[in-house]
Amino acid sequence: MTTVALDGRGAERGPGAIVAGARAAAADGIRLRVFGDSAALTAVTEIDGAELVPAVEEISNADEPVAAVRSRPEASVVLAARDVAEGRSQAMASAGSTGAAMTAALFALRRLHGVRRPALAVQLLVPGRLGPPTLLLDVGANADARTNDLLQFAYLGTAFSEAVLGVAHPRVALLSVGEEPNKGSAEVVDAHARLARAQGLDFRGNVEGKDLLAGVADVIVTDGFTGNIVLKTIEGTAKTVAEAVRAAARSGVRAAAGGLLLRRSLGALRRQMDPDTTGGAILLGLRGVAVVGHGSSGPEGIANAVRLAARTVDERAVERTTKLLERSRMTRGELRRESLQAGMRDRKEP
Amino acid sequence: MTTVALDGRGAERGPGAIVAGARAAAADGIRLRVFGDSAALTAVTEIDGAELVPAVEEISNADEPVAAVRSRPEASVVLAARDVAEGRSQAMASAGSTGAAMTAALFALRRLHGVRRPALAVQLLVPGRLGPPTLLLDVGANADARTNDLLQFAYLGTAFSEAVLGVAHPRVALLSVGEEPNKGSAEVVDAHARLARAQGLDFRGNVEGKDLLAGVADVIVTDGFTGNIVLKTIEGTAKTVAEAVRAAARSGVRAAAGGLLLRRSLGALRRQMDPDTTGGAILLGLRGVAVVGHGSSGPEGIANAVRLAARTVDERAVERTTKLLERSRMTRGELRRESLQAGMRDRKEP
Repeated sequence: MTTVALDGRGAERGPGAIVAGARAAAADGIRLRVFGDSAALTAVTEIDGAELVPAVEEISNADEPVAAVRSRPEASVVLAARDVAEGRSQAMASAGSTGAAMTAALFALRRLHGVRRPALAVQLLVPGRLGPPTLLLDVGANADARTNDLLQFAYLGTAFSEAVLGVAHPRVALLSVGEEPNKGSAEVVDAHARLARAQGLDFRGNVEGKDLLAGVADVIVTDGFTGNIVLKTIEGTAKTVAEAVRAAARSGVRAAAGGLLLRRSLGALRRQMDPDTTGGAILLGLRGVAVVGHGSSGPEGIANAVRLAARTVDERAVERTTKLLERSRMTRGELRRESLQAGMRDRKEP
Repeated sequence: MTTVALDGRGAERGPGAIVAGARAAAADGIRLRVFGDSAALTAVTEIDGAELVPAVEEISNADEPVAAVRSRPEASVVLAARDVAEGRSQAMASAGSTGAAMTAALFALRRLHGVRRPALAVQLLVPGRLGPPTLLLDVGANADARTNDLLQFAYLGTAFSEAVLGVAHPRVALLSVGEEPNKGSAEVVDAHARLARAQGLDFRGNVEGKDLLAGVADVIVTDGFTGNIVLKTIEGTAKTVAEAVRAAARSGVRAAAGGLLLRRSLGALRRQMDPDTTGGAILLGLRGVAVVGHGSSGPEGIANAVRLAARTVDERAVERTTKLLERSRMTRGELRRESLQAGMRDRKEP
């Protein structure tokens, strides 16, 4: 049974949301170790399958992540990461400072062989569209990315999309300012050429900002600066448009009546656009699993962050990522031999 | 009276939209010279104040802009740019290929003293918010930007916001991944430091993607790669959310009735989010005025592109930009002397 180390501090909606989220995740059969203020989280001890581990220090959004993680070994997020590194838990989840959670994970869990920089990935749910979400990465682990990092993000995203989101052959795209291979910054033009020749990826070319929610790719790769801005732009625009619709629905008697009738249908849309639905972002490229929930997560968001962490462990995403990265380093000759061997195995095991 | 050179080719919605747009702009007292296919645009000759100038070549979105502009001197967009350079028109407007329009303008109209790279700027209208729009630049003139370019964009945007959008002291912000000065790519962190010390700008610090439509700044500066992706992300997200609302409004009898009642109120929102409303993007940093309308512009979009071009001329935006750039190069001592002199002038002219 999978155990998730849950950071019990730093969530904007307080210990109540942590306890309720832990209870919901535990009800699904996930074991939890919750790190935080013993007094505030005492209700955790009443949850079947959950354990409370005291953590006397906290790291907030106001702290500089690297300095704080280094100087506060008893901070809840640092203890949660160490719990995974030392094998008591198999994954960590936090709804506290994103920077602190990433830094704690990066320090405690080692990077996969050949990965220079881990990437933060989010699932974009397309309103009204069925099927698996589009994975966007990096959304903020690194402010600068080299060509080689973008290539690695494609492998990290492909492995996660296959393993955890259940996409059979994830279509990979590169975020740029036009579809043509020569469009974009120098790094992006270079990355396009490298992706087009890459082994083990289904690279479909560039996509633009308008395509992010169009479901045209399963994995969209970008640098952490652009990805973070784009993610927040989507959230901000959706909120602004939804508010304008609500305002329109309140203006005038006829519109107000219409708004009332619409409310139930819009509720489903709101739930789909809610960051709580996906459980947050996941840090890819490490030898362990770390999920960073939205700071404003409610109980459902906390529970979904824990569920995402547990599912990532259960689907062996890290091992599958390692395999894909190994494949990517194989030469064409090695890949041909491997595929011939697989063919022979298939014939032997009908 | 201001004359605008209008590119009569390349608009997705064809010559009909060009003619109708020209007619609407001419009705406002703007003189037009329309460059394009004489047969298709013959109705232009019936518009009071509009002149048809035959242009036998066309540049489409499929063409590589620089090569096409160089090799097709009789292309409508090239002739329109030359018309401005040679003083027959005071501004150009095009709803054809953005790349071709930018390239033709860049080749025909010289850059302002000290401007290394012009920037493409758009007005972001905030749904439901009154007051002037937020100017976002660069949205795609350059794929790579140096620190110094970002600083110049701030001056270009400030001058335009003051002159054309009527903002008294435009608040300038830098797009990044967090509010702290040290957040972002190396260029952005550097640009923040330069902007904070810059003369003649009201720099308010960094903004994030979620702030783009929040009305927290009058001018938002970014590199052309990020700006282009962000602009298309806003358009794509707004469209997706609006479609999801429409779909919700159609599902179920009660919701359908609600949707019907809401329709009129939503119409106003749709018009506000429509790129036709602002007339498109404007290329800043040149010694002439060039407006690039949305490719899908209808008659109102074409007319608004022409109106934006004429207003930019009438408000002497280029001269005012030159002045601001000169001020930015002044030392603190020079600025103090200038301000003392202005004070003495004010006392003399009560």
